[in-house]
Amino acid sequence: MSDVSTVDTVDTVACVGAGVIGGGWVAHFLARGYRVVAWDPSPDTDDKLSRLVAAAWPALTSLGLAEGASMDNLTIAPTLAEAVANAGFVQESAPEDLSLKQKLLADIDAVTPPGVVIASSTSGYSMTEMQVAASTPERLVVGHPFNPPYLIPLVEVVGGELTESWAVEWAAEFYRHVGKSVIKMDQELPGFIANRLQEALWREALHMVANGEATVDQIDTAITDGPGLRWPAQGPCLTFHLAGGEGGMAHMLDHFGPSLKSPWTRLEAPELTKDLRDAMVAGVESEADGRTIADLVAERDRAIIAVQRAVEETRHG
Amino acid sequence: MSDVSTVDTVDTVACVGAGVIGGGWVAHFLARGYRVVAWDPSPDTDDKLSRLVAAAWPALTSLGLAEGASMDNLTIAPTLAEAVANAGFVQESAPEDLSLKQKLLADIDAVTPPGVVIASSTSGYSMTEMQVAASTPERLVVGHPFNPPYLIPLVEVVGGELTESWAVEWAAEFYRHVGKSVIKMDQELPGFIANRLQEALWREALHMVANGEATVDQIDTAITDGPGLRWPAQGPCLTFHLAGGEGGMAHMLDHFGPSLKSPWTRLEAPELTKDLRDAMVAGVESEADGRTIADLVAERDRAIIAVQRAVEETRHG
Repeated sequence: MSDVSTVDTVDTVACVGAGVIGGGWVAHFLARGYRVVAWDPSPDTDDKLSRLVAAAWPALTSLGLAEGASMDNLTIAPTLAEAVANAGFVQESAPEDLSLKQKLLADIDAVTPPGVVIASSTSGYSMTEMQVAASTPERLVVGHPFNPPYLIPLVEVVGGELTESWAVEWAAEFYRHVGKSVIKMDQELPGFIANRLQEALWREALHMVANGEATVDQIDTAITDGPGLRWPAQGPCLTFHLAGGEGGMAHMLDHFGPSLKSPWTRLEAPELTKDLRDAMVAGVESEADGRTIADLVAERDRAIIAVQRAVEETRHG
Repeated sequence: MSDVSTVDTVDTVACVGAGVIGGGWVAHFLARGYRVVAWDPSPDTDDKLSRLVAAAWPALTSLGLAEGASMDNLTIAPTLAEAVANAGFVQESAPEDLSLKQKLLADIDAVTPPGVVIASSTSGYSMTEMQVAASTPERLVVGHPFNPPYLIPLVEVVGGELTESWAVEWAAEFYRHVGKSVIKMDQELPGFIANRLQEALWREALHMVANGEATVDQIDTAITDGPGLRWPAQGPCLTFHLAGGEGGMAHMLDHFGPSLKSPWTRLEAPELTKDLRDAMVAGVESEADGRTIADLVAERDRAIIAVQRAVEETRHG
């Protein structure tokens, strides 16, 4: 694709859809110094977006705006075609409705300049399902953000069967360029990665409330005052690497492996085969990257204290 | 129980078991200014505990020690009977083995002064299963901490069928007195609350690795750079209250309810009945306690920024 620009030449981003996620993307791109052209079929788009961006701006200012960043760099386009006319990248954040997304992505594709990558914020559909009606589906990717997109760094990037790999690579590079943390997936997986983890937890929470086993407040406290304090610093795998004491993940799996058979959640565990055990051990060792358990414990402890203080201060702020 | 002391008269805590969790409890009680008498059958208890406490002490010092707190207030008792002889509270943190716990709790119960509450750190067994061999099972409770117990505030407190309610109340009050965040459960539930949530997420993670759908590193990044940044500030329910935009949890469930049928995790969701929907909506409204969605968004944003900065600084610290 010789006509594809490099990610650093993009100066205008088109945002299609002005809900919580679309508005969050608008705020993010504005804060990173881009001109943003937005389009949404609803009549109050202008008001809605102004409100969303204004609400996000104090946070973004405190994080540090890019040079030239301004809320004034936002334009609301009267038509979809005008929104994407000068865009170097398009982010679609329409409601989660498959036929709507299929038609909208085909419409966007029809009017977006060639070689410009179009990403969908979908939290659940695969691009293979969504790209069916587009004329140049090879440039359509999923770029799945987390709420609020202007603060949570994670974006999951994955293509569909008709997506070409240059588009996935380009999107991943562009998102990194605008400050996101990118997980580039090699295969489509329903719910991607983070939502699968989050959704498992959420469904267990709903089961507990449905059965009168725990209250909403107990569930939230269980996370905010419990494992939630570890997770911004160390993900679930690294967390359990430290639960094994000096023996790490290997000891943890060998010792607590049987608890995978316990009815601690309604989700059945996979068989803890030697391959799975070894993959988990190798995975955390690669993540630890030479840091000993003692190093990681010290790092975790500093982080938990800092996180608690940070949350405590903002609560009373 | 007229012979039960009030929680503020306790000056000595017995810690039985010197692994990662037992050692973490020792560090916590020492930092809160208690005399701690520990016992563990292994020959290197003294060394192991000294190492664990020394590793935790910088973090505890930075958090602020209670008046008179000192690592020197730790004694290793030669026998279980000597460990508990003067204790106002006993915390058992032996390995997760049901018959071992049953016998050990009976042994502790036999030599602990009457009226003193004995708590087990078990992460999975119910007190009903564990208290069967004890002579005075009415004072045995679960006090389930999170690793590391000297930093993560959450303790889940629940009794067994033979536990009397005064013991559950006393333990909850004592843990609060020593700075913990307590969830007092009215019924036994396998895995309690936080572990059920965490375990659902963990099992989904293991499934993904087992199937080659995601790497260990991707899973950890998905949490640390994604939803994990929200959870120390707002639990999963409050998080989804904000995912619904200005319509809150009600809009979220009405709008995204169908995604509960999606194959986003291997865990099947409960039926989203009107009762469950209403319970979720009432639950988050009670938690929000008058704060509007805009208030909660502003609070979340401040917290996420502070959490990110805190973690970032400690990583390079």
